[in-house]
Amino acid sequence: MADEEKTLIEILEDSSLIDLNKYMNYVRNPQSGAIATFDGTTRDTFEGKRVVELRYEAYVPMAIRQLKSICSSARSDWNLDSIAVAHRLGTVPVGESSVFVAVSAVHRSDALDACKYIIDEIKGSVPIWKKEVYENGEVWKENSEFVERRLGLGFGAHDKGHGCCGGKVKVGDAEVAHDREDRGGVEN
Amino acid sequence: MADEEKTLIEILEDSSLIDLNKYMNYVRNPQSGAIATFDGTTRDTFEGKRVVELRYEAYVPMAIRQLKSICSSARSDWNLDSIAVAHRLGTVPVGESSVFVAVSAVHRSDALDACKYIIDEIKGSVPIWKKEVYENGEVWKENSEFVERRLGLGFGAHDKGHGCCGGKVKVGDAEVAHDREDRGGVEN
Repeated sequence: MADEEKTLIEILEDSSLIDLNKYMNYVRNPQSGAIATFDGTTRDTFEGKRVVELRYEAYVPMAIRQLKSICSSARSDWNLDSIAVAHRLGTVPVGESSVFVAVSAVHRSDALDACKYIIDEIKGSVPIWKKEVYENGEVWKENSEFVERRLGLGFGAHDKGHGCCGGKVKVGDAEVAHDREDRGGVEN
Repeated sequence: MADEEKTLIEILEDSSLIDLNKYMNYVRNPQSGAIATFDGTTRDTFEGKRVVELRYEAYVPMAIRQLKSICSSARSDWNLDSIAVAHRLGTVPVGESSVFVAVSAVHRSDALDACKYIIDEIKGSVPIWKKEVYENGEVWKENSEFVERRLGLGFGAHDKGHGCCGGKVKVGDAEVAHDREDRGGVEN
């Protein structure tokens, strides 16, 4: 364990760009020889349909609590220095970042494996929901990983049972928010 | 495969900082939903000794050829959009980056796994050598992964047999360059 152990978790609620340098600099330190990052961006196509933008919503206190739990879990499995996680809410146009994870460690395998674990856990267990806006319509999108977790179908080698929400997942095309626990989310 | 497939490989010979944003922006594109990066930095301690700086040397044409081979191999195993690899030569002070890898893909597992494969292959097979400069001396450093490859000890799940150099690895404390094939290198 390095002298300095830091964790930064931010949910950006004002539709501002994620400042990647801020988070990369946050985890950079003299004790670490390795920084791994994952940057999740809005892509222009999904299942053959042209995507215009994505919109994210979250129940922020629960999302932050779950993100903290994921970071703590990662620290228990890998020797890490610093972790930064940022998730943007609101509208994210094509090409822009919706989620960013940065992890530093003395050795690269710790940084790389923990980064993969953290983003997989975010996709699988954090209550952040996504609306895909297409040229000809929009849909609240379930996250297949979220669904698999709830149904107990497992999540590969990374599954450590951190799912936080029960209940079924519902996919609809209405923009109005219904019970958020009925919707899973996020992309990539 | 995305419409746009790009690979950028750069060996920076002028001791300038690696411009991380340049490479992250290079791989960012509207077709990709995922960007994974690895940033290898000089850390301040190695085996209990205080590190002042690292110095890198390479036989550049061979290093570039091997880096191209690694990127091609990654494309054959994962569905990738763009790849950028930069390695700095010369003096790299504590906290600064010596190597940076950025990979974009439609799906995150492709980007993350390929990024890990590429940096592992760089450490294990690219002829770039490192001198560790301590407070009380300096040493050309063998790379244990490079040595293991040569000795046929394997390289875990990522080994695809891309080692390019034969011969033994020699560790010395002389600053003068002898036959470069006698030295392995790089950190993290």
